[in-house]
Amino acid sequence: VVDSTVEHDAGDKGGYRHYMLKEIHEQPLVLRNALNGRVSSEGIAPGIFGEGADEIFKQTSYVKIIACGTSYHAGVTAKYWLEQYANVQCDVEIASEFRYRRSYVPANSLLITISQSGETADTLAALKLAKEIGYMSSLSICNVDGSSLVRESALSFLTRAGAEIGVASTKAFTTQLAALLMLVLSIGKHKNMDPTVSANIVKALVSLPAKLEETLALAGEIENLAEEFSDKQHSLFLGRGDQYPIAMEGALKLKEISYIHAEAYASGELKHGPLALIDADMPVIVVAPNNELLEKLKSNVEEVRARGGIMYVFADKEAHFESDDTMRVVQVPHCMESVAPIVYTIPLQLLSYYVALIKGTDVDQPRNLAKSVTVE
Amino acid sequence: VVDSTVEHDAGDKGGYRHYMLKEIHEQPLVLRNALNGRVSSEGIAPGIFGEGADEIFKQTSYVKIIACGTSYHAGVTAKYWLEQYANVQCDVEIASEFRYRRSYVPANSLLITISQSGETADTLAALKLAKEIGYMSSLSICNVDGSSLVRESALSFLTRAGAEIGVASTKAFTTQLAALLMLVLSIGKHKNMDPTVSANIVKALVSLPAKLEETLALAGEIENLAEEFSDKQHSLFLGRGDQYPIAMEGALKLKEISYIHAEAYASGELKHGPLALIDADMPVIVVAPNNELLEKLKSNVEEVRARGGIMYVFADKEAHFESDDTMRVVQVPHCMESVAPIVYTIPLQLLSYYVALIKGTDVDQPRNLAKSVTVE
Repeated sequence: VVDSTVEHDAGDKGGYRHYMLKEIHEQPLVLRNALNGRVSSEGIAPGIFGEGADEIFKQTSYVKIIACGTSYHAGVTAKYWLEQYANVQCDVEIASEFRYRRSYVPANSLLITISQSGETADTLAALKLAKEIGYMSSLSICNVDGSSLVRESALSFLTRAGAEIGVASTKAFTTQLAALLMLVLSIGKHKNMDPTVSANIVKALVSLPAKLEETLALAGEIENLAEEFSDKQHSLFLGRGDQYPIAMEGALKLKEISYIHAEAYASGELKHGPLALIDADMPVIVVAPNNELLEKLKSNVEEVRARGGIMYVFADKEAHFESDDTMRVVQVPHCMESVAPIVYTIPLQLLSYYVALIKGTDVDQPRNLAKSVTVE
Repeated sequence: VVDSTVEHDAGDKGGYRHYMLKEIHEQPLVLRNALNGRVSSEGIAPGIFGEGADEIFKQTSYVKIIACGTSYHAGVTAKYWLEQYANVQCDVEIASEFRYRRSYVPANSLLITISQSGETADTLAALKLAKEIGYMSSLSICNVDGSSLVRESALSFLTRAGAEIGVASTKAFTTQLAALLMLVLSIGKHKNMDPTVSANIVKALVSLPAKLEETLALAGEIENLAEEFSDKQHSLFLGRGDQYPIAMEGALKLKEISYIHAEAYASGELKHGPLALIDADMPVIVVAPNNELLEKLKSNVEEVRARGGIMYVFADKEAHFESDDTMRVVQVPHCMESVAPIVYTIPLQLLSYYVALIKGTDVDQPRNLAKSVTVE
């Protein structure tokens, strides 16, 4: 294992009560670092994925993303982005599944691995397998320079999040997402990506650090909300499209540090089973819905109103959703569509942090979890 | 909505306490019906997917499966099978996700929809969308002849499960899986599928009804086991490969009818988060592990032994796993690898049924759930 060489945070908590809280608040700064010299109002810089990357992206007709845990959620988000914006086929797979099955390898396939540490055992094994079974090339998105994944991939891209001490990943995740949006732009330019869409993503990325600062101002409101969660044993996180993986990540955070059994569902699946579970002890958290989706969810959850089911909705300030008997709305600063998954990650991180604080768990070192899973 | 034309069960419970229990026990019979005239010791019959199917399968280079709920789990199983056995690229998507995003459509793509009723609103909408965005052809796997999905798909294949009354799907699911294995054989013969593998799948299918009968004999043992679950609020289901979707389906069943918050994980993801949750109130159910996987899981769960974490393992009788302090083993009749997902579904259905029985829920009509979700 190679230590991180990133030096801008030397491991102290910088006045915060926990590393996790510090790392949550560092996100505007590390995002700025992650974007620096790579994307500006002029557009995406050429060659940021390394020598030969453009040649590889030009040839790529299929992208397979492999990761575990939080990094897997970044991968799922990228699948939505790559297909919607960059016109390239993509799928995502859990590393421990990929490495133990026989999978079909399309021609001109690029394997992308995502890992904070670059030492995740299953992800490394998946990369080795991919080389054997005929993937054209490999790219690693990683936070640690010189790590095994970086060394063993043809291309690599550093997320520049700085050392992450809290076991529950926060800034590593949002910088992975920013890296993946830069990838969308870099691959998309070889795939007839709509120039207006590209220009919008560039604009959204450039304004992202300031937007995250604005979003962090929700901390007080979310700390108050956390009171209502601290006696719960369950919760359900719902999202659709590129916010579905953000719901997954929000549920994982709550699980990891507050030990609440939180599970994520694609919004449309609510009626196919989990609706049977909802009552006053199982709040439903909805991420960034549009008007139409929210109306449908409301009518679904109305059915369980008698059992005390309540929805917590994180929604665009400008959508003007109002809180009512069955629904509490947290208004998130308005942002551009492409970066919304990054922006909505912030309130969910804060929610899990403040719930854990009330529950008195060991926030930075939750029970039974290791920072990097370097064994199976 | 068109009524089922299947007549072999007229809607009575046939001496069983609930439709669900009757439908669980009908599985050997309905599987026999599903296979009848389609596969025999001579092999898979030609043309069982309808006129023109062979021409379409020959041209297919990519399969996309779309479904909701339990049918989605059948689709995930088929993805593993199609890539492993039939050398064809496949992915699976929740209908409500597919219909609301922009996805990439590879050349020569076959869309497969799976639905018991053939009237699932999101799945129907997804089929309509697929036609607009350039899918080459469509196949529906469905239990109701003349249903909307059947009428609107180029090809259709009836599962012949008979009318399913219990809201929690059982026999519809296992007949879907059998249909999908027949599809593997029918597509595979155009894709250089290994003839030995084909012959083994044929053999496994032919012997499947008898194997399910043998597996149903576990009912008494599982009824006893259910006592230990009835006071739990949580559980975790683990599976790997083509047993991962079976773990998903097992968790969904328990959720639907016993209102226990059950969640499935790919076995390898345990250490990436959910391990933090495990204690005496959250039993871990492991489906059909091999020796190596079980050893790894045991060492993971050892860590939570002090908190009372216990594993329930459904495993091949011939693997000779033994129960011990932290692990209870249910020995499942030995079966061939390709049909194992179907066989292991049975004990998980029985587990959810007997737990619900003890909890006194309305097994056949769980709260808030409809048999067919014909609205969004």
